[in-house]
Amino acid sequence: MIGGGFIKTLVVVGHPQIEDSSTQQFLKEAANLPDVIWHPVTSFAVNVAAEQALIKQADRLVLQFPLYWYSAPAILKNWLDQVLTRHFVYPAAMGGLVGKELGIAVSLGSPAKNFAAGAGEDFSISQIMIPFQALANKTQMTFLPTFIIDQFGYQSDDTKANLLIDYQRYLTQERLGHFDDKTNWLIGQLTDLITTVPEEKRQRLTLILEEIKNNQATLDDLQMNIKMIHDMED
Amino acid sequence: MIGGGFIKTLVVVGHPQIEDSSTQQFLKEAANLPDVIWHPVTSFAVNVAAEQALIKQADRLVLQFPLYWYSAPAILKNWLDQVLTRHFVYPAAMGGLVGKELGIAVSLGSPAKNFAAGAGEDFSISQIMIPFQALANKTQMTFLPTFIIDQFGYQSDDTKANLLIDYQRYLTQERLGHFDDKTNWLIGQLTDLITTVPEEKRQRLTLILEEIKNNQATLDDLQMNIKMIHDMED
Repeated sequence: MIGGGFIKTLVVVGHPQIEDSSTQQFLKEAANLPDVIWHPVTSFAVNVAAEQALIKQADRLVLQFPLYWYSAPAILKNWLDQVLTRHFVYPAAMGGLVGKELGIAVSLGSPAKNFAAGAGEDFSISQIMIPFQALANKTQMTFLPTFIIDQFGYQSDDTKANLLIDYQRYLTQERLGHFDDKTNWLIGQLTDLITTVPEEKRQRLTLILEEIKNNQATLDDLQMNIKMIHDMED
Repeated sequence: MIGGGFIKTLVVVGHPQIEDSSTQQFLKEAANLPDVIWHPVTSFAVNVAAEQALIKQADRLVLQFPLYWYSAPAILKNWLDQVLTRHFVYPAAMGGLVGKELGIAVSLGSPAKNFAAGAGEDFSISQIMIPFQALANKTQMTFLPTFIIDQFGYQSDDTKANLLIDYQRYLTQERLGHFDDKTNWLIGQLTDLITTVPEEKRQRLTLILEEIKNNQATLDDLQMNIKMIHDMED
């Protein structure tokens, strides 16, 4: 249980040289969390029934890969072609993917800011991900905002630390993209952590936790006030 | 030489069971034309140098496949991942794909009319093909309109006959999408055919050819007149 939620997440990693990728090794350590299954695809020979069973027990399916020619590498496409059989996903109302969430964690070799009309890549990441969005729609999954790993090799340590937190949230946070949820997720993480530390540190961490909760309550009040002012203006 | 042009076309067919596909067998017969190379990808083991040499001698590259989860099947994606190496395609100004044309011939299992906002598939074929368009842009190829094979198994013989002509044009016609060019392409085909038939049929076919050419000239005149009338109105 992470951040107050009960999300079970399956991360299907498709990378032809996963052991040699510093990006994937970094993300692998970050994904070492309860209720997260790190599942690298290492062969074109797929055990369809076993993979389908893995998917069934997950609430969130994250396809993770480096962008190869504006799509997933062949090893991951093969996994999709093999595992998502007609029989497994249809009829959609009773299909094996209905009600789950589909996330894409994509690492880029060229800068993320280039993915825009008129920039170096012409198309946005959202446009490039349309085939995956179409898959989600067809199988009655909720398509999540794509998680972008922007030229990992060029990032500073600070940026990498932020990436780690954001990635852990992407894998485990119940609702994504809501303003309050980052703090609530951190409160959940800290609450879990406190139960595991020695007694002498626990008191100090509990004080920090209370402080964060108070700040969040203050922030909530402020947002409520701003909303009321706006409502009166309308 | 087809229809007055000198287009050399490489058709890369990615289908996991190509021999069992009546669509692909039909298209294979239709593609039996001079200057067209029919090139099925039958293995995940790719001879990169040989494939790159095949591409180099082509003016038009057609990727042909059934739509699997809104993208190419893994066997074709693997071919792209392996063959289109950095070294081969960059720097783009001197790359192995510069100035060529990229076409997509895609066969659909659900009706083409469903590929639209609000219809069964939500997205258009143009949207779904964005990764291929992005590939064409990046490597300085011209992206052609996608050739759609709409539920081949359900088509009438008449529709299939039209599909055959349109497909042959897609592979061989110098400029695609121009109104006049279909007739000019047919005139070229007939001109070629006449040289190969026995003397007694040649005269008759030559008369038919003249008739078609006259019709085309009349059509050109009519279009010119309509254009002049419009220009005067403006």
